[in-house]
Amino acid sequence: MMIYGPRETEQAAKIGEAMKFRGVTISTAESCTGGGLSACFVSVPGSSSWFKGSAVAYQNEIKKDLLGVSEEILREKGAVSEECVAAMAEGARRIFKTDMAVAVSGLAGPEGDGSDNPVGTVWIAIALSYKTKTKRYLFKGSREHIRHLTIMEALSMIWEEII
Amino acid sequence: MMIYGPRETEQAAKIGEAMKFRGVTISTAESCTGGGLSACFVSVPGSSSWFKGSAVAYQNEIKKDLLGVSEEILREKGAVSEECVAAMAEGARRIFKTDMAVAVSGLAGPEGDGSDNPVGTVWIAIALSYKTKTKRYLFKGSREHIRHLTIMEALSMIWEEII
Repeated sequence: MMIYGPRETEQAAKIGEAMKFRGVTISTAESCTGGGLSACFVSVPGSSSWFKGSAVAYQNEIKKDLLGVSEEILREKGAVSEECVAAMAEGARRIFKTDMAVAVSGLAGPEGDGSDNPVGTVWIAIALSYKTKTKRYLFKGSREHIRHLTIMEALSMIWEEII
Repeated sequence: MMIYGPRETEQAAKIGEAMKFRGVTISTAESCTGGGLSACFVSVPGSSSWFKGSAVAYQNEIKKDLLGVSEEILREKGAVSEECVAAMAEGARRIFKTDMAVAVSGLAGPEGDGSDNPVGTVWIAIALSYKTKTKRYLFKGSREHIRHLTIMEALSMIWEEII
């Protein structure tokens, strides 16, 4: 039932220290994690100095209207795609005016979305001013487990990027 | 470390059933819970039919730019105020185009915000087309405990409103 625990909070605190040291800020755009990554950042006392906010875009309409993912990407590539998650991260970076933004979009199940993606497919993107990096994962397990693993991997990707 | 558990997920599932039955949708705007309320909704399989998204507005700038909370409210009443949380809920309802929106803004500590509000002060608002309802709470305990209690109370307020 837990989508983040003590290990993730500790990792988020380390990320926060590095962010503060470098004077950079972060925001998130979340689909399948539903705000869990953001909640993990906010669990760190004083996080408001480096974490600016999150857009939980659980429906395509919101990905489009709020984050600016194009109609074309959603129609041709789908919500669980490299193109969509990259556009979500770039959109979050723009609306929250942060140095860095991380986005996740995946299929946590139990049901699929009618596309070719198996349940457990998750895309994670990190957007910076000069690049957007994406990674694809295929996780196994329950809905909560897939969401937990997504948060763990997103934290690792951010850590790699800032150290 | 857990800001929502099995009890809250069960409550969220009940809310989802009632929402589906009535054909209504919900969105959230969160400050101190940082997306935890939203993550709790997304933990319910199939929640995309009634939960549309969340704006985690952890900084005043985002409350203003994304949710449309006025400069005046933030300056004169502060982020942890009835006026601010009501404007956040109304803003979420507008940007996510939902029938109902719930907003939370509070001081989870460990430090205060320099205002008269003691740590543990939390405002929760529910916006509907014809009314916006607000409640004030004063919770005791750790940062995580205050955030957990906030999620519990927000779920209760939503439940009261839809049954």
